[in-house]
Amino acid sequence: MSLFKQSISSSEQYSRANIDSLLALANELKSLDSLGRVPQCLTGRVMSSLFFENSSRTYCSFVAAMQKLGGSVVSLPIESSSFASKGESLFDTIKTVDSYSDVIVLRHPDPNAISVACGATEHSVVLNAGNGAGEHPTQALLDVFTIHSELGRIDDLNVVLVGDLKFGRTVHSLSKLLGKFNNVRLYCVAHDSLQMPNEVLKSLDSVSVSLHNELTKELVSEADVIYVTRVQKERFSTEEEYEAVKGKFCVNASLLSTAKPAGQMVVMHPLPRNEELSTDLDSDPRAAYFRQMRYGLYARMALLIETLGASLLSTCE
Amino acid sequence: MSLFKQSISSSEQYSRANIDSLLALANELKSLDSLGRVPQCLTGRVMSSLFFENSSRTYCSFVAAMQKLGGSVVSLPIESSSFASKGESLFDTIKTVDSYSDVIVLRHPDPNAISVACGATEHSVVLNAGNGAGEHPTQALLDVFTIHSELGRIDDLNVVLVGDLKFGRTVHSLSKLLGKFNNVRLYCVAHDSLQMPNEVLKSLDSVSVSLHNELTKELVSEADVIYVTRVQKERFSTEEEYEAVKGKFCVNASLLSTAKPAGQMVVMHPLPRNEELSTDLDSDPRAAYFRQMRYGLYARMALLIETLGASLLSTCE
Amino acid sequence: MSLFKQSISSSEQYSRANIDSLLALANELKSLDSLGRVPQCLTGRVMSSLFFENSSRTYCSFVAAMQKLGGSVVSLPIESSSFASKGESLFDTIKTVDSYSDVIVLRHPDPNAISVACGATEHSVVLNAGNGAGEHPTQALLDVFTIHSELGRIDDLNVVLVGDLKFGRTVHSLSKLLGKFNNVRLYCVAHDSLQMPNEVLKSLDSVSVSLHNELTKELVSEADVIYVTRVQKERFSTEEEYEAVKGKFCVNASLLSTAKPAGQMVVMHPLPRNEELSTDLDSDPRAAYFRQMRYGLYARMALLIETLGASLLSTCE
Repeated sequence: MSLFKQSISSSEQYSRANIDSLLALANELKSLDSLGRVPQCLTGRVMSSLFFENSSRTYCSFVAAMQKLGGSVVSLPIESSSFASKGESLFDTIKTVDSYSDVIVLRHPDPNAISVACGATEHSVVLNAGNGAGEHPTQALLDVFTIHSELGRIDDLNVVLVGDLKFGRTVHSLSKLLGKFNNVRLYCVAHDSLQMPNEVLKSLDSVSVSLHNELTKELVSEADVIYVTRVQKERFSTEEEYEAVKGKFCVNASLLSTAKPAGQMVVMHPLPRNEELSTDLDSDPRAAYFRQMRYGLYARMALLIETLGASLLSTCE
Repeated sequence: MSLFKQSISSSEQYSRANIDSLLALANELKSLDSLGRVPQCLTGRVMSSLFFENSSRTYCSFVAAMQKLGGSVVSLPIESSSFASKGESLFDTIKTVDSYSDVIVLRHPDPNAISVACGATEHSVVLNAGNGAGEHPTQALLDVFTIHSELGRIDDLNVVLVGDLKFGRTVHSLSKLLGKFNNVRLYCVAHDSLQMPNEVLKSLDSVSVSLHNELTKELVSEADVIYVTRVQKERFSTEEEYEAVKGKFCVNASLLSTAKPAGQMVVMHPLPRNEELSTDLDSDPRAAYFRQMRYGLYARMALLIETLGASLLSTCE
Repeated sequence: MSLFKQSISSSEQYSRANIDSLLALANELKSLDSLGRVPQCLTGRVMSSLFFENSSRTYCSFVAAMQKLGGSVVSLPIESSSFASKGESLFDTIKTVDSYSDVIVLRHPDPNAISVACGATEHSVVLNAGNGAGEHPTQALLDVFTIHSELGRIDDLNVVLVGDLKFGRTVHSLSKLLGKFNNVRLYCVAHDSLQMPNEVLKSLDSVSVSLHNELTKELVSEADVIYVTRVQKERFSTEEEYEAVKGKFCVNASLLSTAKPAGQMVVMHPLPRNEELSTDLDSDPRAAYFRQMRYGLYARMALLIETLGASLLSTCE
């Protein structure tokens, strides 16, 4: 099914065909941008960003994606918004925003907010930019675009997920999306208290998954992708426990000495990072985490074009 | 007189001919938008939004209106502005903003701020987006556009105004504007302490006005428009007084059982709402308050085009 | 050397040829704007504004400049940013912003921030919009554009700098820039504790500089430019000291009675002002401080075009 006029709440909504089409489009946009020929195909369209919690990286990426295609953005810092301060319901707020928008990008701490939004809109598609402990489907999309661009394939991969796999919605959405590809093996490496939740594991029946509590040299040397997520001190009951754990899952230059060479493996991270990802990796060609954000720009541009039904051809510059 | 290069401080500035022209233009923009053919006729023009108090709905509507026409917006959340924090006078701030703007949208708690702004500008027109207890002339414009679009006329109407008519500048501006049409009868329904102020009543000499302190079945059954405004607890001296009053002026589905059918009457509200407007009306076709915000988008687009002297024809997409 | 792809940290980077070229371009943009023919030559380009301290005037001027040329802006109020609140390093933040930007405008209290930013970028040029007590090179550029536009020349001028010359980075950048012209004489007028720092004086070896602690009639009558800067109470140890000093350096209508006539001299100020610049000058034709902000718009447009390598001809409206 085409994504035209589809709101996106979960990464499970993308079919394999959708992903192939989005990645091809993202790749074309990347080429066009390098030639300075990005089509202004969303001219006259309006995106509203409704961020009920802070997420500067996701926010900026969406705004830049919309504007590079000629569209415009109405942003409202929710703190200073009179919607919330006058006690308006989320339904009424969405009705208001829907009156002038073509697409609403919603970030909300409540996992159910996204379905309220989808139910209230009449003119706009809604894109989930993170709903509490739920999903983050555009992050998952940019992650597979990164893997595809860097390694040339998504099928037949050893993917090592490291860090906080319990609360990191990024790895939940990514795992579900990788489940649509063939021969993906997931190695979940985390402290016992931060392992991948059962609900997510259950949805991964077509994937080979194994759980580990150490990042061994064997895992590192087999990995095509090491995907690191931030470990937050607040998740641990004592500072000592955190200190004891953090070193075990730290990805740095010396760890990568046994890994596959550049071109055959990448290190990814959704950022921001704490100590789990060392800056001594920053200049290693296998460190893909800064490039990952740029892939995100093109992945979001592609998603905007497909959900809004624009054409690259009709209104090129 | 044409509105070209005219700043708009009060709804009394619109002549009947201006309104007819603005509504025709707003209607045309609505049609063009539904075809995806909004003209980019404000390309290169800059709107500055200066909101010295929060009003998310009005702010977003203006920003979207400007951007849909190809114009750009420089927005400054006043809280974080260094203009105010460095103690700058309003005159100097407007001089600054005027240096890069074509139009300034001003919201200010002080009713006199709008004339300071009009006196300081050299390059920009100023549009009043609410000046304290004063006026809100673009809200009045969108209200008459809503009535005209929904009922096909503005002359010869029974308009019931309900709620807080004392502090609601929206109903002040709307009443003055309705005074320019023929055979409009205003029924002001409010608790005695919240009735329409004498100053406004005096300016309505050509209108038939009656005051009521109950929303009777007779009024409801005669109404072509029921315009509800928010009743705020803070306006009452005691919580008991508020509780006693609020039920009397609540507009809900059961109240509308004696009203005219869909197509012949509408319920409007400037939003946000409290309990005076029940959500059980939301799916009633006579509930026009969500559509009202969309009419607002086109009304503001029309006003921008006329005050900035742009032409739909010259630079169509 | 052309400014194409050059980040600008200091006003010392502009060669005399760069300045001549920028001023000619700024002047052409001013003419095109008055005809409503500003070229949309930055369409598809993205500016990021990163303001780690407030500066509404500089911020708005840059945003308007970018947007008038068809470019778009991703702005992030740093207070509400999750970059800083999640403890991200400036290097990582710049890496993030660089992933979707063509130009980054940076304001930061730390003088070294600008070199961190220049070192982290791969896709974007960085423009210094004020780095602590360091420099403000776009302000210096707009100041010389103002002088050139108002007086027809920059060489052979008597420039009187008045106010806080110690902490005012504006006058530091301007002095360095004026040092590139011929026969500029600088008269530094300030309370002893607020005189021009030695470091700046040392870099002005080709300029004739004299220090004064009184704004005498002789100085006023010789001046082609009187450049006033804000004197802040906080710079003085006691209120009495401030009160004693402030009158001595106040520029007002009576002081200008012995000055050269309109067309031959101007009063400038970077704004905002305190009592050191009287409002009784506002309607004097020699008061150039409001026009100065408009010159700033065109100066910044010119700098964006040159550093981004756009052409006025290629994509004119």
